[in-house]
Amino acid sequence: MSALPWHAAWLPDDAFAPLGRRVTEIRAAEADGPLVATVVAEVRAATARSGGRLVLPDGDVASADLVLALDPDAGLPAEGYAVERAAGTTRVSAADEAGLLYGFFHVVRLGEAAFDDALAASRHAPAHAVRMLDHWDNVDVHDVMGQVERGYAGGSIFYADGAVREDLSRVRAYARLLAASGVNRVAVNNVNVHRTEARLLTDRIDDVARLAEAFRPWGIRVHLAVSFAAPMTLGGLDTCDPLDPAVADWWAGAASVVYAAIPDFGGFVVKADSEGQPGPFAYGRDHADGANVLARALAPHGGVVHWRAFVYNHHQDWRDRKTDRARAAYDHFTPLDGKFDENVVVQVKFGPLDFQVREPVSPMLTAMPRTHLALELQVTQEYTGHQKHVYYLPEQWSEVLGWEPWADGRTVSDVARDVVAVSNVGDDRFWTGHPLAQANLYGFGRLTWDPALDPADLLDEWVGLTFPGADPRVGEVLRDLVLGSRATYEDYTAPLGVCFMVGPGHYGPGVDYYEYSAWGTYHFADRDGIGVDRTRASGTGYTGQYPEPWASRYESLDTCPDELLLFFHHVPYTHVLHSGTTVVQHVYDTHTDGAARTEEMARRWSEVDGLVDDALFARVRELLAEQVRSAGEWRDQLRTYFWRHSGVPDERGGPLY
Amino acid sequence: MSALPWHAAWLPDDAFAPLGRRVTEIRAAEADGPLVATVVAEVRAATARSGGRLVLPDGDVASADLVLALDPDAGLPAEGYAVERAAGTTRVSAADEAGLLYGFFHVVRLGEAAFDDALAASRHAPAHAVRMLDHWDNVDVHDVMGQVERGYAGGSIFYADGAVREDLSRVRAYARLLAASGVNRVAVNNVNVHRTEARLLTDRIDDVARLAEAFRPWGIRVHLAVSFAAPMTLGGLDTCDPLDPAVADWWAGAASVVYAAIPDFGGFVVKADSEGQPGPFAYGRDHADGANVLARALAPHGGVVHWRAFVYNHHQDWRDRKTDRARAAYDHFTPLDGKFDENVVVQVKFGPLDFQVREPVSPMLTAMPRTHLALELQVTQEYTGHQKHVYYLPEQWSEVLGWEPWADGRTVSDVARDVVAVSNVGDDRFWTGHPLAQANLYGFGRLTWDPALDPADLLDEWVGLTFPGADPRVGEVLRDLVLGSRATYEDYTAPLGVCFMVGPGHYGPGVDYYEYSAWGTYHFADRDGIGVDRTRASGTGYTGQYPEPWASRYESLDTCPDELLLFFHHVPYTHVLHSGTTVVQHVYDTHTDGAARTEEMARRWSEVDGLVDDALFARVRELLAEQVRSAGEWRDQLRTYFWRHSGVPDERGGPLY
Repeated sequence: MSALPWHAAWLPDDAFAPLGRRVTEIRAAEADGPLVATVVAEVRAATARSGGRLVLPDGDVASADLVLALDPDAGLPAEGYAVERAAGTTRVSAADEAGLLYGFFHVVRLGEAAFDDALAASRHAPAHAVRMLDHWDNVDVHDVMGQVERGYAGGSIFYADGAVREDLSRVRAYARLLAASGVNRVAVNNVNVHRTEARLLTDRIDDVARLAEAFRPWGIRVHLAVSFAAPMTLGGLDTCDPLDPAVADWWAGAASVVYAAIPDFGGFVVKADSEGQPGPFAYGRDHADGANVLARALAPHGGVVHWRAFVYNHHQDWRDRKTDRARAAYDHFTPLDGKFDENVVVQVKFGPLDFQVREPVSPMLTAMPRTHLALELQVTQEYTGHQKHVYYLPEQWSEVLGWEPWADGRTVSDVARDVVAVSNVGDDRFWTGHPLAQANLYGFGRLTWDPALDPADLLDEWVGLTFPGADPRVGEVLRDLVLGSRATYEDYTAPLGVCFMVGPGHYGPGVDYYEYSAWGTYHFADRDGIGVDRTRASGTGYTGQYPEPWASRYESLDTCPDELLLFFHHVPYTHVLHSGTTVVQHVYDTHTDGAARTEEMARRWSEVDGLVDDALFARVRELLAEQVRSAGEWRDQLRTYFWRHSGVPDERGGPLY
Repeated sequence: MSALPWHAAWLPDDAFAPLGRRVTEIRAAEADGPLVATVVAEVRAATARSGGRLVLPDGDVASADLVLALDPDAGLPAEGYAVERAAGTTRVSAADEAGLLYGFFHVVRLGEAAFDDALAASRHAPAHAVRMLDHWDNVDVHDVMGQVERGYAGGSIFYADGAVREDLSRVRAYARLLAASGVNRVAVNNVNVHRTEARLLTDRIDDVARLAEAFRPWGIRVHLAVSFAAPMTLGGLDTCDPLDPAVADWWAGAASVVYAAIPDFGGFVVKADSEGQPGPFAYGRDHADGANVLARALAPHGGVVHWRAFVYNHHQDWRDRKTDRARAAYDHFTPLDGKFDENVVVQVKFGPLDFQVREPVSPMLTAMPRTHLALELQVTQEYTGHQKHVYYLPEQWSEVLGWEPWADGRTVSDVARDVVAVSNVGDDRFWTGHPLAQANLYGFGRLTWDPALDPADLLDEWVGLTFPGADPRVGEVLRDLVLGSRATYEDYTAPLGVCFMVGPGHYGPGVDYYEYSAWGTYHFADRDGIGVDRTRASGTGYTGQYPEPWASRYESLDTCPDELLLFFHHVPYTHVLHSGTTVVQHVYDTHTDGAARTEEMARRWSEVDGLVDDALFARVRELLAEQVRSAGEWRDQLRTYFWRHSGVPDERGGPLY
């Protein structure tokens, strides 16, 4: 184990040994940028640990095993690099200093294979220029939400005692982990901007500057969530009307102050007119008006606005079946296509609701061709088990990024310029509460760089880095535990895309918990059937927000995929799925089998006792026990709910209460 | 309006005018006890305000309109008094100083009628020697429960800033109100005893002594809720085993310290082995062992232990239909009948669950003839509308106190020696949040003095005192609003005794909110029917805890009262009630009609605009608006839930969703 007070995650010293034993030449000068110094320091440390050697451009002439070279003329895209092996030397050519850093970590990832003469030449560049993590961290601990909203891994690594931490060594270690995974942007505070946090924009900007300094050597630019009401609450104006020149001036002044402190500041993240946050609606303005006033303040400095599309009526009347929360973002935003400034990015949750286990991809992503879009994901497991349940998110993200809205080869990854996700990190020793949730954080960076990567391969990468030199059984067990874990969780929780059957805090079963609420999240179960009719023919018309062929596929019971059936249709419990079973029997079966698989997972984990770090072993064991308990509760409540409503017995005869 | 920063409630100066205008002679000496001085001061102040005169025994010889005389030889019970009118003088003869005080307030209550020559002679003594209010007040504000647990009227009137308040003038005003209603005991802290509050027993006893000093002139003795674990947490022992001599010694020492500070201290209130509180079970001891060790510490000083019988498994498995929370108190306590010391009072909630709108009376009250029992009620509206809904509790208490377990004339009031209730008071200007909830506090004191009083007459008393000289329409409107309000609330909330269909915090509808919980509170609704089978024939056997005739009456569908049907039986939605309608149509009708009556209540209240204090008018109007909203939500959710489950249409055709 590392002597650090936190787990080394995917960058333990041993992961650097193959490189550290060899001779590496770096052909770049520190004048080329701060990331060069980072790479030099990494190679120097690795070779010092393992007995290899670092050679700098004007140093010894030697036959290097590895050459890391800045090569701006090689025709590589920004942040890109190429790798080739010839004459006993592996050469990484980088487009720029960031490419040099990513190329270096590429070699680390490859391990011994980087020095194998069979290594094939390859070229690498990120699919998405902005690969960003949003931290929903509060400076102060919030009464209800704690310090990290929707955080399940302890307090914030950025803030303590009402300010940015004195000692930022852990933030630097975090930045290094992110860089090794491919992330290049971090928003450092909660999108629900409370009183103290609002001031990060103004009199507390030096706090943000200290964070930016910690991230900068790792090629990561810092963004800030701001309150749309800041001109009033911080500036003392009596309006925050985006068309008021005084408001525009205030934002311009605020941006200048920010850039004086942080010249490479990334931009603002804004949640406006959403769940009680202030926004342009109060002044009869639209979201383009709102976003553009901020964008114009940032434009002279090269900053962007990430403007969240998570806008809906959160005071909905459950009696009203015509209002459909799933429609809201599309209805609000698509009329504004083309009206947003060039440096506005409209940030869209992957599904139309809220990070459920199973939702169709948001149709808004298909309908704003003249607007820059960001796809928003969650690494934090808000609805997916609070980092107590194993849930391998790359399995879900890979589906989303690769989905083809027009069935013509164009994917979600092609239409979303940026990819953003809410971080799952806190001051927990293992960073993410559940040690295996580290694989989600790692996978996020890697998939946003290359959405074509196979989640199973990513897991192997993560295992190889995190447990270098471990007994092969560790990898086997981890594959068995992690791969398919999303399907398992889906099996024992809300079925067939019905969504939101969760209890308080979004953990554990609560079949009817949201059924009569103001949040617009209903399933309409009665004694005859269940599901939300979102068809054009008889429902809310939401299917009409999709382009063809999906508009028709989702509309028809004949073609709607089973896993989204109850998202789009209200059907009898005895409706027969394409799989050949009925809705109710599907619920009985998947819940029985999904919960049983968690028991098998716990048994499998016991096989690696003694093969991994004891503390990590114990933590995972303890959390698997909770997953088994919780899955059993889900199983019994869901099965019983469907039994009590349908009166249909389980043909396999399992217990119903 | 009074110039005080709080509402005068049922003791405005004007209520004293009939007495204050006249000549009153007090035949008692201050040496007879501190309450004599209280009465003297009251009469002096009233006559000073209204132009009458006070005559003391050795003062002027005069023909008094009123004589208040201590007369220990008149054969009156403790605290009792007799009233008669002869030769133009009303004479109150009191058994003791407390009787003098209560006799004085009797005259105040009568108003002008006290001086009418037609006044009939009467004798008065309390039915219950201990008439007690428990305050669930915390010294510190609790994270989840706030300062007053289950309090809906602001913070504590006792504590502020982590200690007893500096200024206790409001506590004295409260004591005066309680004395005028008949209450003679107050427990000053929460039965869930947290860290700070535990220390009231030891190093903070002077704080309690200051409260006792404020209550003492009003004939009210102070009690303290203590933690069973105090010998460990405060005393540093390594056990709190009630049979360990060191533990007994510790309690004896603690009691001595308490009585040195407060010679008339009332005793301890204990919640043990209940909802996570420590208790004797940890040592394999029973509740008699637990209660007796405390009782023996108090006995030399004349104190009592109120030991709560609210003991049940709060980690119940909803899958297990054999365990019945309703059985728990009886099962735990009745085997111990006869084992409790003389100065132990076992305190029993009126129903077997938890202060629901409709429960059968707890059978435990009928089954411990050799044990002193206290009936526990709630003045605070935990499940009955949070003092946002008008809910006149004396209508419920009167039923409970007058219920005849053996149908032979003996009532609950006859078997319960003490009556205790959780207070509804906080630092709100109107004391109780909802001004009309004052009538509940007033009614509690009066009913515990005389359970035969008619709740309608009590309301008239309260109105006469609180709104002296008001336009008669005020009384008419208040009668229309308040009388029957319990039935109205019952109509639009959980039907037919089914219980616990409440949401978070026990406010608002949550039909299934507790259905899969650990709290043992289920209704088992499915597509066919609803209710809890507690029969001996096929259910949990709870009906067998009742004596005859009720054991048989509750057991049989033919004789079980409609209002308790779903408490005792699981029936089809189409089951026909004695009223002639079906269960489901009953739900439709009562919810429609109950909610409609709240609208009528709000309309009625508008008629007294200008006839009562503006602030009081506005507060009630605002709360009635919330009641109308909330009742409508209850109506729609309950009706829809029953519709979705039963599929039976409303024969009156109201909206179902």
